[in-house]
Amino acid sequence: MTQLASAGGDTGADNVGGRGGESVAPRPYVLSAAPGPLDPEELEALDAWWRAANYLAVGQIYLRANPLIRDPLAPEHIKPRLLGHFGTVPGLNLVWVHANRAILARDLNAVFVAGPGHGGPGPNACAWLEGTYSELYSYIPRDGEGMRALFAQFSFPGGVPSHCAPETPGSFHEGGELGYSLLHAFGAALDNPDLTVFCVVGDGEAETGPLAGSWHCNKFVNPARDGAVVPILALNEYKIANPTLLARIPEDELVSLLRGYGYEPLIVAGAEPARVHQDMAAAMDTCLERIAQIQRAARDGSDTTRPHWPMIVLRTPKGWTGPPVVDGEPVEGTFRAHQVPLPAARENAAHRAVLEEWLRSYRPEELFDESGAPVSELCRLVPAGGRRMSANPVADGGSLVRDLRLPDWREFAVDVPGPGATEHEATRVLGGWLRTVTANNPDNFLTFAPDELASNRLQDILEVTGRKWQAEIGDHDEKLDRDGRVIEVLSEHMCQGLLEGYLLTGRHGVFTCYEAFVHIVDAMFNQHAKWLDASAAVPWRQPLASLNYLLSSHVWRQDHNGFTHQDPGFLDVVLNKKPEIVRVYLPPDANTLLSVYDHCLRSRHYVNVVVAGKQPQPDWLPATEAALHCARGIGIWEWAGHRDEPATTPDVVLACAGDVPTLETLAAAAILREELPWLRVRVVNVVDLMRLLPADEHPHGLPDSEFDTLFTRDSPVIFAFHGYPWLIHRLTYRRTNHSGLHVRGYKERGTTTTPFDMVMLNDLDRYHLVMDVIDRVPALRQQGAGLRQRMVDARLRARTWTREYGEDIPEVANWRWPG
Amino acid sequence: MTQLASAGGDTGADNVGGRGGESVAPRPYVLSAAPGPLDPEELEALDAWWRAANYLAVGQIYLRANPLIRDPLAPEHIKPRLLGHFGTVPGLNLVWVHANRAILARDLNAVFVAGPGHGGPGPNACAWLEGTYSELYSYIPRDGEGMRALFAQFSFPGGVPSHCAPETPGSFHEGGELGYSLLHAFGAALDNPDLTVFCVVGDGEAETGPLAGSWHCNKFVNPARDGAVVPILALNEYKIANPTLLARIPEDELVSLLRGYGYEPLIVAGAEPARVHQDMAAAMDTCLERIAQIQRAARDGSDTTRPHWPMIVLRTPKGWTGPPVVDGEPVEGTFRAHQVPLPAARENAAHRAVLEEWLRSYRPEELFDESGAPVSELCRLVPAGGRRMSANPVADGGSLVRDLRLPDWREFAVDVPGPGATEHEATRVLGGWLRTVTANNPDNFLTFAPDELASNRLQDILEVTGRKWQAEIGDHDEKLDRDGRVIEVLSEHMCQGLLEGYLLTGRHGVFTCYEAFVHIVDAMFNQHAKWLDASAAVPWRQPLASLNYLLSSHVWRQDHNGFTHQDPGFLDVVLNKKPEIVRVYLPPDANTLLSVYDHCLRSRHYVNVVVAGKQPQPDWLPATEAALHCARGIGIWEWAGHRDEPATTPDVVLACAGDVPTLETLAAAAILREELPWLRVRVVNVVDLMRLLPADEHPHGLPDSEFDTLFTRDSPVIFAFHGYPWLIHRLTYRRTNHSGLHVRGYKERGTTTTPFDMVMLNDLDRYHLVMDVIDRVPALRQQGAGLRQRMVDARLRARTWTREYGEDIPEVANWRWPG
Repeated sequence: MTQLASAGGDTGADNVGGRGGESVAPRPYVLSAAPGPLDPEELEALDAWWRAANYLAVGQIYLRANPLIRDPLAPEHIKPRLLGHFGTVPGLNLVWVHANRAILARDLNAVFVAGPGHGGPGPNACAWLEGTYSELYSYIPRDGEGMRALFAQFSFPGGVPSHCAPETPGSFHEGGELGYSLLHAFGAALDNPDLTVFCVVGDGEAETGPLAGSWHCNKFVNPARDGAVVPILALNEYKIANPTLLARIPEDELVSLLRGYGYEPLIVAGAEPARVHQDMAAAMDTCLERIAQIQRAARDGSDTTRPHWPMIVLRTPKGWTGPPVVDGEPVEGTFRAHQVPLPAARENAAHRAVLEEWLRSYRPEELFDESGAPVSELCRLVPAGGRRMSANPVADGGSLVRDLRLPDWREFAVDVPGPGATEHEATRVLGGWLRTVTANNPDNFLTFAPDELASNRLQDILEVTGRKWQAEIGDHDEKLDRDGRVIEVLSEHMCQGLLEGYLLTGRHGVFTCYEAFVHIVDAMFNQHAKWLDASAAVPWRQPLASLNYLLSSHVWRQDHNGFTHQDPGFLDVVLNKKPEIVRVYLPPDANTLLSVYDHCLRSRHYVNVVVAGKQPQPDWLPATEAALHCARGIGIWEWAGHRDEPATTPDVVLACAGDVPTLETLAAAAILREELPWLRVRVVNVVDLMRLLPADEHPHGLPDSEFDTLFTRDSPVIFAFHGYPWLIHRLTYRRTNHSGLHVRGYKERGTTTTPFDMVMLNDLDRYHLVMDVIDRVPALRQQGAGLRQRMVDARLRARTWTREYGEDIPEVANWRWPG
Repeated sequence: MTQLASAGGDTGADNVGGRGGESVAPRPYVLSAAPGPLDPEELEALDAWWRAANYLAVGQIYLRANPLIRDPLAPEHIKPRLLGHFGTVPGLNLVWVHANRAILARDLNAVFVAGPGHGGPGPNACAWLEGTYSELYSYIPRDGEGMRALFAQFSFPGGVPSHCAPETPGSFHEGGELGYSLLHAFGAALDNPDLTVFCVVGDGEAETGPLAGSWHCNKFVNPARDGAVVPILALNEYKIANPTLLARIPEDELVSLLRGYGYEPLIVAGAEPARVHQDMAAAMDTCLERIAQIQRAARDGSDTTRPHWPMIVLRTPKGWTGPPVVDGEPVEGTFRAHQVPLPAARENAAHRAVLEEWLRSYRPEELFDESGAPVSELCRLVPAGGRRMSANPVADGGSLVRDLRLPDWREFAVDVPGPGATEHEATRVLGGWLRTVTANNPDNFLTFAPDELASNRLQDILEVTGRKWQAEIGDHDEKLDRDGRVIEVLSEHMCQGLLEGYLLTGRHGVFTCYEAFVHIVDAMFNQHAKWLDASAAVPWRQPLASLNYLLSSHVWRQDHNGFTHQDPGFLDVVLNKKPEIVRVYLPPDANTLLSVYDHCLRSRHYVNVVVAGKQPQPDWLPATEAALHCARGIGIWEWAGHRDEPATTPDVVLACAGDVPTLETLAAAAILREELPWLRVRVVNVVDLMRLLPADEHPHGLPDSEFDTLFTRDSPVIFAFHGYPWLIHRLTYRRTNHSGLHVRGYKERGTTTTPFDMVMLNDLDRYHLVMDVIDRVPALRQQGAGLRQRMVDARLRARTWTREYGEDIPEVANWRWPG
């Protein structure tokens, strides 16, 4: 309680100055004799763990030396920059220790999800108390030196971030961007019948759209075959600078909301530790007994209705056990406890004194022995081996992942008597293969779709399974099944988040989505890619199954959906991430799609983005050639080019990536062959977009010599591309022949209702490609003038026809590769 | 009831073939004598409107001729491709006509938001019935010929899309990507005290995260100064191929959910038209009376508590009034009614017969007169002028937008005695100006933030206002105010959506967000940019105020937040949209930020993305020079380059865009000046990223000659960029000196906790920039070797220091421009 000198005020989140007014340290508390399920010894033990974890969290935020405060706290013991967040940590630690009690009492197989942002110090502390930290990081032993190292590395250059991250033992949920905790928790619980996921949801996070929608995940959890999620809504009332919405509505309204979401909430509220421990223990017992009852009834078949799962609302003060007042302002129980409550502890003696008193209020001398290790009373609360939430292999999904049993995709390939002789809906063909993949892997493969499975033509999967559904079933509902292997919900966030949770805990899956609307999960993709990137650098983490997208209903075939449904820009977002992590495939037909997808489902630790059409499109390659072409990722289609191909240097290269661009390119090649048979045309098709990158920028990148062989060093290249055209330039700007490259793609010109009108609007049509060739091959400047005019006329005719009949002109609609 | 020949089956969404089994047409119905608030005449009139609107909707989907079916329906009357969605339309039309009754009875100022996807035929029909369509599109008069034109243009090349779009009279909400209807509705209601927004929420859309979160918008609506939103949850039970979650939970659970969201739901359910009309009329009356009561009490000051706003749950069959059975499968009331119920109506006589019977079941002969115009009984349900929801000027926000009263930003500029002599937090300086902007414009300017206002250093705004908040206020809550001009909620979706709704209805605003997490609204940005693009082509729409982002807490200063908080890729997403619409600014200091933002708040119909730091950074330009530099958007900083600048051709160009890259570039320039005084260094700073584009690609694009003057035709250019480096290549690949361009930017190398360590990790630091110069200026290959080694050493020293002390090395932290 010292009057401090005034320093620069700052109401921002990461302030560092001290302000005027007194500061008050918390006092050590004596546990009251609150009645409840815990006997005094158990209560004392739980509280001791909680104090230990809180102590270790405060230490991580402030200390770089003197971890056990066996010396008076001096400036040099304190980190020069104070970073990290204390506010949410006591709540996380409370849930952790009560989960441990339940794990020990019930031999639970449990994992922990820390939803609130920047709660890292809590799970770090618990993992160290459980010994896992020391097992995984030998330089952080469970003693005083290890404690010092644990503190020093936190939020320090070369150390660990301030939130749960791949480095955090037992975590499979990154605490960076908020909103996905419940999704990851439910994804983990799917097909894990024995698993219990304790998922702490922050009340700040609860304001996000993805979190608000994801409470409904309980409609997809089958108690007979899935595990259980115990949501714990941490209602500590504050975000960075504001109260939370859910803390500022009456409790009956909150309970009504959670019941409406389908839960039976139990409320634990208070600030008096003993009372909260007793209530929390009782709530945990009630939850877990109710869950056991639900699962028993579902598994013995006596109850097949959707249960109302229990959950806990934990209303405790933000920054609980921290300084009640700093610089004259209330802190504990306010938004000021969000981050670092004593921002000037290094420079300011008064702050430092309060910090020391605060640390001592946890009575570390009772918690850690002479060596600095946790006392044996604490260790008795540590579950054994993999039962520790910090060591549960489920949280290191890569250690559990099993290869899929994949049927030979060649058996599902379509017969291709000659290029373009037949037509198929590529995604429907893929669906046939995925049907067997689904049947072959009944407990570790799921398909997710935002009500677009059938629209994207994967409905054949539903021949061997249903859509997972535990809610009511109406008379006219079809293909719903409590045990379904497809999850459909009109939320891209839920599809992505559940799949992430499923992958992060060691399983496989596919997310199929309309191409334009996958942007809804751009941010989630970014975060997952960052997790893959960062976790690859954590030695004890094993590679996960890849995150596989199948994007269909793509930009070129939005025949009636129009402009709002046209956006191929997810590829641009994806290619900003680490090259080691991301892969983009644009298979031009059904067999190449099969080949690519087989590769994706075998791969590990990537994000694979596959874009493919659902409309009937020509088949170009038989299975064997498709396999070869996809293995190369890029190649000359000799049959489509000049008869001398690939012997001579071509006059022009027609390159293409994507199914519609490939079709238009081949149609242009056919016109050129017919009209200018002497013109040495080369057709290059790109399946694997990363082949275009330089070899030192991506593992799939082509060496310059090979690139030059394909694209020549100086011939004009007309590149018909599925997406925004500049993406091709960004991939190729270092290549020899970049100045010869002319790209046609989508440029936000849309709103149309026929396929060919759409490609014409964007100058990607066959006629325009021929015009591009004429404009760029010097020998054609004069000689091609007549053909050029005919191309202009053909376009005009096609457009006029479309405007009149609402359909594509027959010469286009019925066009076939001349063979 | 005809047995049809079997055609190719298709369970996808947009099937076109007929299947086996009988098809049944709906029968004309006679209204029963259901009791309720409507007398028989009013009931008959409402139902007649509803039938007329449904008839016109079916006509839009199917017909290109014979609109009044005065001839028997023949194949040539039917469009060759059947596109559009019928399922949701009868519900939309029902709400519309009941809203009209309320508007007439209460002289309401009301607008309509159609949330369900692809409901276009409904509002199109109502706008035509109201005469607005003909007023805005003279070629679509309100007669038989106009009806034919209305039908023919729908979902036809050159026509209008299948959902509500800028072309739709009275619509300010695009029906493409789902999830934002309530957000737009609430955004429209803010500061519109007399407005009532009827917002139909689809039960499919309701599954999305953004929609699920946005029910809580009611905590921000002040009944004393804002208008009212009447949410109508259209529970027609089905999406494309699945039932909806909210239709498959018990009604008491749904009611509990909606009450938990803070509403008082009224349920209207049924399939019998008269009964539903009576119940809907009663529910509308109850809603509007309750709203009037709430607003009265708030406005006379007798009740200042948060009200529980009324809302309606409308449970009616999907595809109501459509064919009950098609090809032997139930359709009305099932997912099969989602899109086109009779897909083969042109080719298949039986389908066509059912279609004709279906159209006749609405009794068009009673609804339209000899000329094809609506009969006078229908016209009596049309409100006058701008009271028509199809003609309300609120829905054409550009027609209402007023210029802001902007204080002279120069009065808020910081004093800059010399480059780099002083430091300021740029966004805090901007906050000072925004404080006065907020005060000067008390009813048409709002700032939105996801709990990041103070963190992004805009807290000075709170000196003249509070954060808008109608929920409870706790003892320690600060700056909450029922009338606040700042809206903070931890949901980027809500911030973006509310601001969009506010802009679309003619007001101004700013959304400030952490840079990395603005990706959460990538998809919403895309859709808004498409709205701006498409609406610019609609002659009667006026330009809106621009959507202004202020992105801070950016990639280079994530000192403790780490890798998850690093993502400058929103710029890449933005630059994929139409050049006419998007602007990106990277002001390097406080005064340039002020100048840029002044420009943004004066602009119209753009998306302005401004990225600026919140940490103390050197000030470079006094106000006058800042204004000039920002007006140019790009320019040589002569004072930072060689003493001969800009007279001679430089040996090297150091270009920079963004505050941290500018700092590092100037530090590199200072090193070069000190070490190699003879080297002709030019420093170019880019504020307006679009200046880099070719002049024919963007209105701001520099002509090649000017670009060459700045960047030379062949000197090496080292470009230090704020974002992913390839973005600069994508903008400049056509420029003369592109091959001389070397870009340093962010490449997904993160996780660090000091500012300089971060730039070092990405090779964007001053030492590395000097190394880049040495590597690229031929004269330095030998001569620069010693300096190069010292740069390598300096980096190593800086990194070692950081790892040891957790802070940046003093020579960097304390560096100042030598002047």
